[in-house]
Amino acid sequence: MSFEILEKDLAGRIGRLRTRSGIIETPALFPVINPVKQIISLSDILDIGFNQVITNAYLLKRHYGDLVREVGVHKLLNWDKPIMTDSGAYQLLMYGKVEVSPDEILKYEIDIGTDIGVILDIPTQWGRPKEAVVLEVEETLRRARAALVKAKVWDPEHRMLIVGPVQGGDKLDILGYSATKMGELNFDIYAIGSPTTLLEEYDFSTIVRMIATVKARLPPGKPVHLFGAGHPLILPFAVAMGVDFFDSASYVLYARDDRIILRDRTVRLNEIKVDRIPCNCPVCRKYSVKELMSTNKAERERLLAIHNLYVLWEEIQEIKARIKEGTLWEYLEEKAGGDARVKSALLALRKGLRALLKVIPDESGRVRALHITSLESLHRPEIIRHVERLLNNYEPPQGCIVVVLPGELLDRPYIRDPLIYWLIDQLISNDLLSKVHIIINNPILGPIPYEISEIYPLSQHEYPEPTPNYLRLHAHHLLRKYLIKLRSKGFNGIMVITKDYHEKIINELMGLGFKGLVILKARSRQELYSLIPWIVKEISGIQCSNQM
Amino acid sequence: MSFEILEKDLAGRIGRLRTRSGIIETPALFPVINPVKQIISLSDILDIGFNQVITNAYLLKRHYGDLVREVGVHKLLNWDKPIMTDSGAYQLLMYGKVEVSPDEILKYEIDIGTDIGVILDIPTQWGRPKEAVVLEVEETLRRARAALVKAKVWDPEHRMLIVGPVQGGDKLDILGYSATKMGELNFDIYAIGSPTTLLEEYDFSTIVRMIATVKARLPPGKPVHLFGAGHPLILPFAVAMGVDFFDSASYVLYARDDRIILRDRTVRLNEIKVDRIPCNCPVCRKYSVKELMSTNKAERERLLAIHNLYVLWEEIQEIKARIKEGTLWEYLEEKAGGDARVKSALLALRKGLRALLKVIPDESGRVRALHITSLESLHRPEIIRHVERLLNNYEPPQGCIVVVLPGELLDRPYIRDPLIYWLIDQLISNDLLSKVHIIINNPILGPIPYEISEIYPLSQHEYPEPTPNYLRLHAHHLLRKYLIKLRSKGFNGIMVITKDYHEKIINELMGLGFKGLVILKARSRQELYSLIPWIVKEISGIQCSNQM
Repeated sequence: MSFEILEKDLAGRIGRLRTRSGIIETPALFPVINPVKQIISLSDILDIGFNQVITNAYLLKRHYGDLVREVGVHKLLNWDKPIMTDSGAYQLLMYGKVEVSPDEILKYEIDIGTDIGVILDIPTQWGRPKEAVVLEVEETLRRARAALVKAKVWDPEHRMLIVGPVQGGDKLDILGYSATKMGELNFDIYAIGSPTTLLEEYDFSTIVRMIATVKARLPPGKPVHLFGAGHPLILPFAVAMGVDFFDSASYVLYARDDRIILRDRTVRLNEIKVDRIPCNCPVCRKYSVKELMSTNKAERERLLAIHNLYVLWEEIQEIKARIKEGTLWEYLEEKAGGDARVKSALLALRKGLRALLKVIPDESGRVRALHITSLESLHRPEIIRHVERLLNNYEPPQGCIVVVLPGELLDRPYIRDPLIYWLIDQLISNDLLSKVHIIINNPILGPIPYEISEIYPLSQHEYPEPTPNYLRLHAHHLLRKYLIKLRSKGFNGIMVITKDYHEKIINELMGLGFKGLVILKARSRQELYSLIPWIVKEISGIQCSNQM
Repeated sequence: MSFEILEKDLAGRIGRLRTRSGIIETPALFPVINPVKQIISLSDILDIGFNQVITNAYLLKRHYGDLVREVGVHKLLNWDKPIMTDSGAYQLLMYGKVEVSPDEILKYEIDIGTDIGVILDIPTQWGRPKEAVVLEVEETLRRARAALVKAKVWDPEHRMLIVGPVQGGDKLDILGYSATKMGELNFDIYAIGSPTTLLEEYDFSTIVRMIATVKARLPPGKPVHLFGAGHPLILPFAVAMGVDFFDSASYVLYARDDRIILRDRTVRLNEIKVDRIPCNCPVCRKYSVKELMSTNKAERERLLAIHNLYVLWEEIQEIKARIKEGTLWEYLEEKAGGDARVKSALLALRKGLRALLKVIPDESGRVRALHITSLESLHRPEIIRHVERLLNNYEPPQGCIVVVLPGELLDRPYIRDPLIYWLIDQLISNDLLSKVHIIINNPILGPIPYEISEIYPLSQHEYPEPTPNYLRLHAHHLLRKYLIKLRSKGFNGIMVITKDYHEKIINELMGLGFKGLVILKARSRQELYSLIPWIVKEISGIQCSNQM
């Protein structure tokens, strides 16, 4: 297999794809090269940091024909690194027809020495009736099967990697069907049909839902390309959902329109009211906004396109760094914090990741704290997993009394807090430990059995303080569920020490059916300390009937 | 007055401070220059984009003495732009004493030609007993009064701007007292005593509370400096609370420790697991991580310090751009999204801004949409103001029937939605409009009277879709309050058209005491359209007793 996955975070991964012109490190963005008129030189693109480009085999064929067969696409572009070629499907989408057959273009891609070739499929036009899309997807599938057969004949050594596009657009049922069927064919790379229209409408959440639909159905080990989504607002979300490749013509299309891509937004040059663009790329270091405005159109377009590519490079590099740090989720929340449409994408991603949970690595070895900043943070895979384990798999110790301690007054990891140490020590020396199950009620994560309190992320997390009530609700529900589980395991006494005295919570505790219920208030660590002897004494007076 | 405020967003502002060595554009960061050993040249600092520096008069005096009096501080540093000098207070804080009197250092600052001089105060040591802090603050106040008197004698033409530090640290009552008292003295600039310890502990929320305490008590037109808070995670929050100046030694202190400042975090060089730092500054463009690691310590320190300054420059530039765009709040939420400790700062800022509401500009002329991404977004000044106006000042039209339409099915601005147009048209032609108050129930902002639906931000906002329930609660509470207001104004009939049918909401509506209550469901725009004739007919059958 030519694709190797090296690191993972969420459903995102860092990988290496071997092509005959070299290795592509993923996630990777392929700048789109116009073979006829390219406004940035390929050496500039290499300097910026891109090691791969995508160009268009259909345009190459129309404009240069057999010349490219003779010299090869690498020589023609003067680029000895990996090249992907699109097939003319985009032109089919734009102009309704192309003057080339699927076989012809595939043969041409192989002949010109493309490293990665896309088959000529039928891209889904936006707003097209469902019946038509179904027919087109079936046609794409037929072409896909045919292409794989032909490729074996024309490229017996399998020198060109071949891309199978998944179409269906925002019609998720068709898209899902297409993904399932394409996934059964042995393509080297899968691609998701172009969501460019969605990108222009800032509808990032539909893009995320499209990716989720496709990723849940494709073989997880295969690389996935997302067509036409080259913007920093969507890139990290697509990567987090498992997309490995992107192409971008946006850098030049935006530049043509005097639009500047920034990490968290797009701004028109004439809307920038400060003297310098807040960016340290070589273009922005050299030119003030005024200077850019007074440059002639062609040169300005070139400069802004270079700037845009620098920003895209930095974005990809940041995403890679985040995957390696294990902080991709935090990065997504950062992006979502400042833009409601990106927040919609986070909400969609939260759902989408659930279906991908099986391919998301278990992070129990991590050391860096995860940050809980919103209700969405509580749905990150690490926490979903913890909750499922706690409620379904975790086997609490034997005993009959639950002691719930207030997390706000204890230091993490709880197991190493001297106060807990002392409590455990007292219970042991009075031979009482076997009666008791000690849990710490964390304001955010809810009940944490002290035995597992060092496991990731139960001690490695940060949350805002003072903690907003809306963030505490999750903890509260979870405590309730866990206590019901304990009740069913034979625990019948409960001592709850809380920092704040909520009547609602007390009423709920009373409704759980414990025979003995003690609720105590400890407003400070000092007060909690002073309660320990009393707790121990109280426990010593209880007989566990289930242990008799 | 030498300080002119040009633009505002939240309590932040863009301003111009005139000094005798030129104008400082605020918000401005003063890189700290060590007059004895400076690892980055001042020409590098100028190139990066800083037009002002801060250095230490006490160190200048100890190391160069009267030489600086002769040549002047600008010549000594070879820097003809604005210079601020600190007074030795930092050394007092670090070493417990300084060998200079407040008078001596003030005279020295004036003599050497400092543009902005800080008086020698008593900085508040962290963790110091309250009684001691009170005494020290009183001493600082005595010194402050004396300094202003002396400055008039020694600098009769007022060539040096003079800085009055507000001390008290995290003891907010003392800090507030100090701010009130200092605010009564006529300093050119006020400074907030150094929260460096808090910064090191990532306790950004206490820094925000300190700023809020001080800003609420100082004359709003005066510039405010925050000592020792040079990190992109706190800068935008401090600016949003009204801080204009910063100094930073962090760029070099962090570099000494191989720490790299990034826009949203600090990373140790050896913790970066990617080949290139995700940054486009000239240092990061030139050197890979590996190359930086293998450079000798002194050169690496210099390179990382330069990188850190580039990032700080970009941050200040970004903040300026955000103020001009009017999107500083969105930027704060972005920062808060990825870091729980920064989220705490946002929570503190939300409270702090309430006290500053009077200095926050009214944005009713804005056109750019505000983004609602969290519950905190609903507490931004624009929304607080709208809610207060709606509930307290807005005079609803005469009438007896309230019609509540579902915002989800309508386009903003609602007043221009053809459906609303048609409804109004029908009511007018049947001479019914005077009976009816039409409000649109926006899923996030709650009741929007159609008459004011074009006023900022009632049509200019974005929220995530599908909208999470926790974001809808605010709207729900507000609708209830507004309906109670309408009830008290004599409205006694209500027709509610909703998209979703929540029993809880219906029960609540029933409890509001309207005599007539009609609840209808419209799941689509189409259904809503079809209800309009019915609504009109229904209204025509009602007599308004209060209008008879």
